[in-house]
Amino acid sequence: MIEANNPSLRSWLEIPANSDFPIQNLPFGIFSTTSLSARVGVAIGDKVLNLSALLAAGFLSTSNELPFTESDYSASTLNPIINHGKAATRLLRARISSLLSSDSSELRVATDSHSACIIDLSSVTMHLPVNVGDYTDCYSSEDHARNVGKMFRDPENALLPNWKHMPVAYHGRASSIVVSDTPITRPHGQLKPSENEPPVYGPSRLLDFELEMAFITHPGKSLGQPISTEEADDYIFGLVLFNDWSARDIQKWEYIPLGPFLGKNFASSISPWIVTLDALEPFRVSGPIQDPKVLPYLEYSGNSHYDIDLEVEISTPNGDSKIVCRSNFKHMYWNMRQQLAHHTVNGCNIRGGDMIASGTISGPKEGSFGSMLEISWKGTKPVAMPDGTERRFINDGDTVTMRGSKKSTTGISIGFGEVSGKLLPAN
Amino acid sequence: MIEANNPSLRSWLEIPANSDFPIQNLPFGIFSTTSLSARVGVAIGDKVLNLSALLAAGFLSTSNELPFTESDYSASTLNPIINHGKAATRLLRARISSLLSSDSSELRVATDSHSACIIDLSSVTMHLPVNVGDYTDCYSSEDHARNVGKMFRDPENALLPNWKHMPVAYHGRASSIVVSDTPITRPHGQLKPSENEPPVYGPSRLLDFELEMAFITHPGKSLGQPISTEEADDYIFGLVLFNDWSARDIQKWEYIPLGPFLGKNFASSISPWIVTLDALEPFRVSGPIQDPKVLPYLEYSGNSHYDIDLEVEISTPNGDSKIVCRSNFKHMYWNMRQQLAHHTVNGCNIRGGDMIASGTISGPKEGSFGSMLEISWKGTKPVAMPDGTERRFINDGDTVTMRGSKKSTTGISIGFGEVSGKLLPAN
Repeated sequence: MIEANNPSLRSWLEIPANSDFPIQNLPFGIFSTTSLSARVGVAIGDKVLNLSALLAAGFLSTSNELPFTESDYSASTLNPIINHGKAATRLLRARISSLLSSDSSELRVATDSHSACIIDLSSVTMHLPVNVGDYTDCYSSEDHARNVGKMFRDPENALLPNWKHMPVAYHGRASSIVVSDTPITRPHGQLKPSENEPPVYGPSRLLDFELEMAFITHPGKSLGQPISTEEADDYIFGLVLFNDWSARDIQKWEYIPLGPFLGKNFASSISPWIVTLDALEPFRVSGPIQDPKVLPYLEYSGNSHYDIDLEVEISTPNGDSKIVCRSNFKHMYWNMRQQLAHHTVNGCNIRGGDMIASGTISGPKEGSFGSMLEISWKGTKPVAMPDGTERRFINDGDTVTMRGSKKSTTGISIGFGEVSGKLLPAN
Repeated sequence: MIEANNPSLRSWLEIPANSDFPIQNLPFGIFSTTSLSARVGVAIGDKVLNLSALLAAGFLSTSNELPFTESDYSASTLNPIINHGKAATRLLRARISSLLSSDSSELRVATDSHSACIIDLSSVTMHLPVNVGDYTDCYSSEDHARNVGKMFRDPENALLPNWKHMPVAYHGRASSIVVSDTPITRPHGQLKPSENEPPVYGPSRLLDFELEMAFITHPGKSLGQPISTEEADDYIFGLVLFNDWSARDIQKWEYIPLGPFLGKNFASSISPWIVTLDALEPFRVSGPIQDPKVLPYLEYSGNSHYDIDLEVEISTPNGDSKIVCRSNFKHMYWNMRQQLAHHTVNGCNIRGGDMIASGTISGPKEGSFGSMLEISWKGTKPVAMPDGTERRFINDGDTVTMRGSKKSTTGISIGFGEVSGKLLPAN
C-alpha cells in the first residue's frame, strides 16, 4: 500500500466531516489570494497548503529527496511539478502527508509558519491547474455510445463496428478548457433545423453538458515510442471532473465526416483540484468483460477501473436545483490504461499536462445518463424542475454542477470537489 | 503597399539568384549553431540574421518603436515575438528590411558586427519555430474533397451536404508536429484488411503524405468573442508548408463517427521558416465563386486567396526522385479568412502560435493531386519511379519533400524553402 493512502492516518489539522479532502487525498491545484499570485497548492480539509511557503520555511528541502525548486512551486501551472515525473510527485505527496500526519510534530509545532503555509480554502481563487498541451476526448462508455446509436442510428446495431475493438477518441480544443466557475457563453454557429432548407446562423438551441472525467499526463516517451497498458499508470498524474459542454445542433450539422468541432470547442470546464491516481488506489475495481477479445496491445491485468460516484445538478436562475444524473466512473468499458496505450500505439507522443477525457459517463439505467441528450432522450422526455419549468437541454441562466466522490470500504471518503459553470445568453 | 514588399528594394547582401528569401520575404524561424542555442532568426538569401545579436549590437533598439526585449529574441520559439501582435511583428520586419536595404549603410558598414549578426544558412540547424498550442486541420480544397468522395462514397454526390456551407475542419495533434528533416517512423495500429474478418494489429500499409499549407496565429480575442473575416488578417502571422502524414488504413477503420485520430497524429512535418502574411501581399488573387451563397459570417471582400506554386517530390533510397504533384494554394475553395472566422464563430479562442492547416491542396487535374491516395487513385494507378519501382503509397526509406514559391508579376520570387521527411520502417 502507498503509505499516504493508509486509512488509519489522521491529520493534526481538523478536517470537517465528509470533506472531499482528507489526508488520504491531497489533491494538487493552482490558487491565488488577494496578496499571493497564482501558485501551487494542496487541498487538505477546508485549507490549502501553500507549497512555496512550505519550501521557504524549510519543510520541502531537498534532504527529503524532493527534486523541486522554488520556481516549480511558485509557477502558475502545475506543469513544472508534473514534468518531474511520477516518482517525484509521489515523493511530494508522501512528504506532505507526513507533514500533516498526527504522528508528526514538525509542521504542527512550527506555529510561526502556519499563517503563510496554511490558507483558508474559502479565501482563495482557483485557476486552471495545467497548461493543457493537447486535449483528447474518448468515447468509452458503452451505455452512452449505445444510447447515442439508438437515437441517431439503427437501434438494433447501436454500436458502430469499431467501437468494441478500440477506445474510439478524437482531438479536442485545449485553448477553451476553463476552470470551474468560469461562465460559459451560449455559442453561435450553423444550425440545420430543417432537412430541406439551407443552414441558418444563430445561437445553439440544444446546449448540453457531458459528464466526464479526465486524466492529466506526465511527460511520455519520445515520438514513435508507444506506452503499454502495463506502463500507463506511470504516465498518469491524476484526474479531474470534466464537463464537455456540447451544442448538439451545431455538432449534428458539422460532424460528418471529420468529427465534432465547433459543437464542442467553445468551452470545456474542469474541477480545479487534480486528485492523484495514487489517491484513487483504494477505489480500483474490475471492469466489464470485453467481448470480442481485444487485440494484445489493449489487454491489461488487474483492476483498472475506478469506483467513483458521480452526480450532475442543474440549478435554475431562481435558485431551485435538481440532481439529474447519478452515475459512476466504473461504468466505463475502456479504462485509462487502454486509452493511453491506444493513443500512443502509433507512436503519438504525450507531454506533461496533456488531458485525456473519458467521454460521457452514462450508467446502464435511466437516471444514470450523463447528458441531457440522453436524459431527455433527444428532447422527447423533458425533465421536470422543482420550479415547475422543464428542461430538454440547458437554459440560459442555468448552472450545471458535477461532483465526484467515494467512501472506501475502510471509511475514507475521497472527493474531487466540483466543476460548476453557469450558462450565459448568446452575445 | 507595405514598404518591405517594394519590388525595387535591393539588399547590400548578395542574394543568390532564385533564392526563396530575397529582401522582400524575410521569414522568421528558430535556428541554432554549434555555439549558439536555439533562438530567433530571419532568413535573407543564404544567410540567417541573428536577432539577439542585432539587438546586442544596437540595431533593434526601442528607439525604432520595437517592443521586443532580449528574452523575445533569445527564446527557443517564436511565440514571444508573435504574442506581441501583428503591429509589432510588422514593425520588426520593416526594421530588418531597412537594415538590409542597399539604401541603408547602418548595418552594412558595421562590419565588426557582421560575424555575430549574419550567419551562413548552411551552418545552422533549424528547429520547430513555434510551440503549437492547438492545431486544426481544415478540408478546404474542393478538388480534394471531391476526389475522396468519388473514391469512398457516391461519385454522383461526392461532396457531403455541409461541405459548401462551411470550411469543415477538425482538431489535430499539436505534440507530434515536427520540423522539416525529422525522420518519420511508420506507425503501428489497427487495420481492417478484410471486411468480414476482425481487425489486426500491425504497421500501416498505406502510408501517405498530404500537401498542405498552415497559418500561424497571433493571440486572438477572449473566449466567447468571434473574429470576423474582415479582422482575420490581423490575427495571422504567417504560413508554412505542412505535410500531414496519413496512415490511410488506420484512418479508414477508426474515423467513423468522431473523425481521424491515430491515422494522423503520429506526425506532421512543417517547413522551418514562417513566411509572413505581409510578404505574401503581392500574391493575393481572387477565389472561386462560392455557390450556394455562404452565410453572412463567411462573406469576405477583396482578394483573399494566394497564388503559390506547390510541388511534391518523392526521393527513393537509391537517390532517384520524381515530382509527383504540382499544385497551387489558390485552388482552395475556402480561404484563411473564412477558416478563421468559422473557427471562432462559436467563441472558440485562439492563442499565439496556434496552427491552422488548409487540408490537402489538390488542383483540378491529374498531376495536381496532393496525396498518393488521389495520385494513385486508391492504389489503382501506381506511379512509375525513375528507378523502375512503382509507388501506390510511400515506401520505407522514401523521402517526401514539398516546396512552395511564386514569382510576382514584378519579378520578385518569394519562397517557403521546403519541408522534407524520410519514412523509417516501423519499429
